[in-house]
Amino acid sequence: MSAAGTAMGKPFVVTKYVRFAHCDPAGIIFYPQYFVLAHECKEDWFREGIGYPFERMVTADRRGFPIVKLDAEFVRASRLGEQLSFEVGVRSVGATSLKLSYRCVCGSEERMRMHSVLVMTDLDRNAPVPIPDWLRERLAGFHVGET
Amino acid sequence: MSAAGTAMGKPFVVTKYVRFAHCDPAGIIFYPQYFVLAHECKEDWFREGIGYPFERMVTADRRGFPIVKLDAEFVRASRLGEQLSFEVGVRSVGATSLKLSYRCVCGSEERMRMHSVLVMTDLDRNAPVPIPDWLRERLAGFHVGET
Amino acid sequence: MSAAGTAMGKPFVVTKYVRFAHCDPAGIIFYPQYFVLAHECKEDWFREGIGYPFERMVTADRRGFPIVKLDAEFVRASRLGEQLSFEVGVRSVGATSLKLSYRCVCGSEERMRMHSVLVMTDLDRNAPVPIPDWLRERLAGFHVGET
Amino acid sequence: MSAAGTAMGKPFVVTKYVRFAHCDPAGIIFYPQYFVLAHECKEDWFREGIGYPFERMVTADRRGFPIVKLDAEFVRASRLGEQLSFEVGVRSVGATSLKLSYRCVCGSEERMRMHSVLVMTDLDRNAPVPIPDWLRERLAGFHVGET
Repeated sequence: MSAAGTAMGKPFVVTKYVRFAHCDPAGIIFYPQYFVLAHECKEDWFREGIGYPFERMVTADRRGFPIVKLDAEFVRASRLGEQLSFEVGVRSVGATSLKLSYRCVCGSEERMRMHSVLVMTDLDRNAPVPIPDWLRERLAGFHVGET
Repeated sequence: MSAAGTAMGKPFVVTKYVRFAHCDPAGIIFYPQYFVLAHECKEDWFREGIGYPFERMVTADRRGFPIVKLDAEFVRASRLGEQLSFEVGVRSVGATSLKLSYRCVCGSEERMRMHSVLVMTDLDRNAPVPIPDWLRERLAGFHVGET
Repeated sequence: MSAAGTAMGKPFVVTKYVRFAHCDPAGIIFYPQYFVLAHECKEDWFREGIGYPFERMVTADRRGFPIVKLDAEFVRASRLGEQLSFEVGVRSVGATSLKLSYRCVCGSEERMRMHSVLVMTDLDRNAPVPIPDWLRERLAGFHVGET
Repeated sequence: MSAAGTAMGKPFVVTKYVRFAHCDPAGIIFYPQYFVLAHECKEDWFREGIGYPFERMVTADRRGFPIVKLDAEFVRASRLGEQLSFEVGVRSVGATSLKLSYRCVCGSEERMRMHSVLVMTDLDRNAPVPIPDWLRERLAGFHVGET
């Protein structure tokens, strides 16, 4: 048990190639593409880790998790063809909000770290909605605490 | 009058910079970005030339113009910071379809040519709809014939 | 043997999800993203099928395969979360040029077809170079003829 | 004079449309596209405000300003066709680093705020280089202090 009384889980891990489309004229990832990749990882995590694919959430249930806040550090540049490993973990789950952390490494070398805050939203009313208990339970398995 | 009895108009012209985000590790436009740029030009044309902005068409009227066919030639590479001039013209207007031609030049040097075929669509029913007469009339002003 | 005396091979096949980043406000793939996906498939093919990863070709050998011509048909719309199967095949190999065909299906439903013509290029001199014999031999294994 | 003894300047302001390519299936800007737009604004600022276009910096002088850190708040969603106004200002200039702030509004409504830290880099050696005095002087005109 952590100090906060929440059992720890472990992050979802997925690997991605640095693609031609990600790279800029300097031959390295154009930084907004890190966020495109991080979103892909979140989709993979919801599909394979959480069992709630985005198409069910967005298209069928009309729910979304828009981002309201993020901070990121770009530790070292990533280059065409490198295989990056992304770890996605849950920092905390509020009534309607979800705090995530991402870490991106290439081998043992850290490349990028990100914290983000998302809010579960009714896409039709464009208003926050409570995170349902069944989703809260599944998210708990990926709880990594404040990182 | 052209052979087909349609008076000729002239293409809509707009300039775009080659942005950092468009360029690949070889320092030239990554070719899918030509299509992103061509779509931007089409949005500018609908807003400024046709007087029917995409947000009114897509968001309010739930109409779209998905592409069903295109061919393109990439004549010469375009580089970071160059100012490209795009010409968008109408080749013909059918009951539900619209044939366009694009030409992209940098100064006097041709860079890209594209032909595309679009179909006006009801986005909610995902079905073709007739192009309304008022739109047909506005499109006629940009008629350039088969190019 | 085909009429042209070239033994037939078979296409490289790879699957891709329709990602959130690919979709437009109409909820379907924004068409330039098909070309981004097709490029990803070409990278996968060069890495896994041909054994000549893009980072070796572009970064180490300073060779590229810019596209000079393409035509594409968008048969049906693809939606968020769908799993698309791309087939990449070789139509023919010239002295410096390579003709490819792509076919994208979802289950048994065809979504997109594309033909492209590429030219092998010295990226530093920006000039065509002959396709080396060892690469020509590897490409032959994916020969599908004119499609 | 500010407390730090630096005269205040004013931010560079530029407007951008929310394009079809920026929007997601929920009909709002896909958040990584805010960073693509912010980079466009930085390019416009360097070209029109600073007088040092990116193509001269990157292509000719082989200098870049990779981002090492950022934080951002997404205050309200932005929708297709809206005209966004971006303000780019300098928070401070160090030996090799540059701290910027971005603010994006639509009319009087705030949409996004970002702070970023960049480091001037020799792209060939991939190492930090001092910001030259002439550039430092030009940057001073856009000094907005800590925001």
